[in-house]
Amino acid sequence: MGTTEDLARYIVDSAPERIPDALIHEGKRCLINFLAVAIYSSRDPSLDILLDVFDAEGGSPLASVVGTGVRTTLQNAALANGYLGHLEDYDDTHFPTVIHPSSPVLPAALAVGEHLHAGGRDVLAASVLGMEACCRIGMAVHPYHYDEGWHITGTTGVFGSIIAAAKLSGLDLGQMTHGLGIAGTQAAGVREVFGSMTKPFHPGRSAQSGVLASLLAQRGFTSTTEILEGRRGFAAVMSEDSHLERVNDGLGESWELMMNGLKPYACGVVNHPLIDAMVALKNSAGIDPSEVQSVSARVHPLVLELVDRPNPRVGLEGKFSYQHSMAVGLVDGAAFPAQYSDARVADPVIAGLRDRIQATIDESMAEDASEVTITLRNGQEHSQRIEHATGAPDNPMTDAQLNEKFRALVGDVFPSAEVDLMLSALWDLDQAPDVGGVIALTRLADRIIRE
Amino acid sequence: MGTTEDLARYIVDSAPERIPDALIHEGKRCLINFLAVAIYSSRDPSLDILLDVFDAEGGSPLASVVGTGVRTTLQNAALANGYLGHLEDYDDTHFPTVIHPSSPVLPAALAVGEHLHAGGRDVLAASVLGMEACCRIGMAVHPYHYDEGWHITGTTGVFGSIIAAAKLSGLDLGQMTHGLGIAGTQAAGVREVFGSMTKPFHPGRSAQSGVLASLLAQRGFTSTTEILEGRRGFAAVMSEDSHLERVNDGLGESWELMMNGLKPYACGVVNHPLIDAMVALKNSAGIDPSEVQSVSARVHPLVLELVDRPNPRVGLEGKFSYQHSMAVGLVDGAAFPAQYSDARVADPVIAGLRDRIQATIDESMAEDASEVTITLRNGQEHSQRIEHATGAPDNPMTDAQLNEKFRALVGDVFPSAEVDLMLSALWDLDQAPDVGGVIALTRLADRIIRE
Repeated sequence: MGTTEDLARYIVDSAPERIPDALIHEGKRCLINFLAVAIYSSRDPSLDILLDVFDAEGGSPLASVVGTGVRTTLQNAALANGYLGHLEDYDDTHFPTVIHPSSPVLPAALAVGEHLHAGGRDVLAASVLGMEACCRIGMAVHPYHYDEGWHITGTTGVFGSIIAAAKLSGLDLGQMTHGLGIAGTQAAGVREVFGSMTKPFHPGRSAQSGVLASLLAQRGFTSTTEILEGRRGFAAVMSEDSHLERVNDGLGESWELMMNGLKPYACGVVNHPLIDAMVALKNSAGIDPSEVQSVSARVHPLVLELVDRPNPRVGLEGKFSYQHSMAVGLVDGAAFPAQYSDARVADPVIAGLRDRIQATIDESMAEDASEVTITLRNGQEHSQRIEHATGAPDNPMTDAQLNEKFRALVGDVFPSAEVDLMLSALWDLDQAPDVGGVIALTRLADRIIRE
Repeated sequence: MGTTEDLARYIVDSAPERIPDALIHEGKRCLINFLAVAIYSSRDPSLDILLDVFDAEGGSPLASVVGTGVRTTLQNAALANGYLGHLEDYDDTHFPTVIHPSSPVLPAALAVGEHLHAGGRDVLAASVLGMEACCRIGMAVHPYHYDEGWHITGTTGVFGSIIAAAKLSGLDLGQMTHGLGIAGTQAAGVREVFGSMTKPFHPGRSAQSGVLASLLAQRGFTSTTEILEGRRGFAAVMSEDSHLERVNDGLGESWELMMNGLKPYACGVVNHPLIDAMVALKNSAGIDPSEVQSVSARVHPLVLELVDRPNPRVGLEGKFSYQHSMAVGLVDGAAFPAQYSDARVADPVIAGLRDRIQATIDESMAEDASEVTITLRNGQEHSQRIEHATGAPDNPMTDAQLNEKFRALVGDVFPSAEVDLMLSALWDLDQAPDVGGVIALTRLADRIIRE
């Protein structure tokens, strides 16, 4: 049999209870991370554009847009939630391919799961299978595909979202195979749109395409059975070179999802090892910023190339300032979106500390490493070396750090008691008889469509 | 300025009354041809799959699905009508690129036009501009793009549909430019799905993508302003080589739409010069089939390679039989879908005539040429040479032939009085104050969504 049908058979045959618990746990972590970012982003005014289009077109209230009171069609909910997941560039990253698998896949699982009152473990299993397939298909066309200009999250996302939606909908082997064809021929999204709202639109649209493909395939709509491997199929057309065996080799045994990293800080990754060092120094030495004489750091050359900005004026500039990122790391012990507000950038304590921070290039330093030394006014020195920044597969965020991220982001939108309720429900999701319970907690009635 | 913005400016600045009347007439012909095929196809059971999904998702009744009583969202109507237009592979063809411009573009114009109560000439102008841009963008990436495996109707269709929708919606230059970005990054569709329902799904989805892009851009959604020419844009990513100057050179002066052909017969094009000859012999010599002793034809080699099938058993096989196609040409003077029914294939008069038809290869014969000689039982001979088959740009279908096609196809669905009413309204469309009038005529109340 062919690559596509082999993959479809594996998906159809995978019983949710047979997905290893470690993967179900990873799926939960992805979902918690996704919801943290998506709910935080739900206050962005650009969401109103999508909601206003939904309102103009109408539709049955079948699934929720997180952080709002809106219930809309399955396709609309998938589109909006996928958009929100990627809007802040703060979602997960499959390191080998730079796919962000959560944003196209989880919205499809949530929309269909909510509508069908699916159990929590079923939703997590469908999500894990969808994200895994998405990353594996990405591996099959990597690196040519992204280098050619494709936004790989948008293109491979359609396969992940159809799988998540179709698995929850109980599609049989033929339907699943054709569904992959319907979804896969909608693979789209070029990198030219980076820097605009259309970038997060890609995973949103991919989530929607997968839901639509599942709805069609379930009703007998036909397509090719060889969308991945066919002579005019996805791999042949959208990559100069491909390794189709990577789609199915070791399926169910080795997991690409374990190479998926969650991002601890709301800024470019080159800042991350420096923030790690400052947070560690705050936690271990309890340094008072007013006692700091100077901070020196040895860094990879990219740091000075990309984020050397001693005097950021607004929050967005703070994200591109290693000085600001390090300062908030020491003062706040965090680098969440709140640390990149205009107010925080203008804060005199932070600004004063920024002036005392200086990085120098160390050619031997890896990109995800750093060494930081703080000299206090009393002459004392504290040093911290970071070998691998938090968030990479070999140094993942802990569950506790993830909780902290969730509380920081969702706490901006919901009262803290509700945030705690959500977190506890999410960690117990595999026991929930109906995913609708936790989805109901993510709704916020006062965010409605503007007329 | 760049290619994209130049194109957007031309579209925004083009007043409907300044589009030459010859082009408005061509737009009408495309619309009449499109509606003939789409209405005929509306009885296909596969449409129920789409309508059932629309029903499950819900939506406001803003625009019509032709040949049905269904009014649904703008996006759904665009999707369904685009699907219907291409389902029978009987729509128009831009000869230089093999784009079928009507199916992705006209459904967007019809949906938005109906909703906004746009005037007939505005709808025709927006359609002409959209189809023209679609073909020009195709020329810019031809032939590499199709050769790489892209279904060029699906990919370039998104540009045509956003333009038609956005022009009718009155988008300004900035919105139009960003709208092209939102739509263009959704360019999708690979040839691997040919032979399945997903092939006509491509223009449907393209029509829908353009409508969505227009709705978003109108509300301020941002994208790239260089989707066509950007380093990671449409042309660079989706073609090995491109000729971007073809997008805008001579805009408003030379028209690719004049290279768009309408298909007279419901079968593969290699049969067409043979059918032309038989129809001409019927009309000029009034031959009675029972008097025919033998029919000989000199043909291009492809005829024997592709459509040599003396004894077709069912209608679909008849489409791949030059013998059957020639027989119905003489007996019926036509080769519409009715001539390819199972019953017509089994008809004894037709079958008897098929047995007396023989083609031989003439290496000097062009692909769109033929020479046919009929010998009667009384020894008389009648010959007919065809230099260019009907439907190519240098021998277009006449308006009378188009009327005949419309009557044959739509007459299968609507009573003939209503067909005449529709035709007369369509030829007068440029004078209609509201396109909704003619669209109302295409609705058929007894085709509703199956529950």
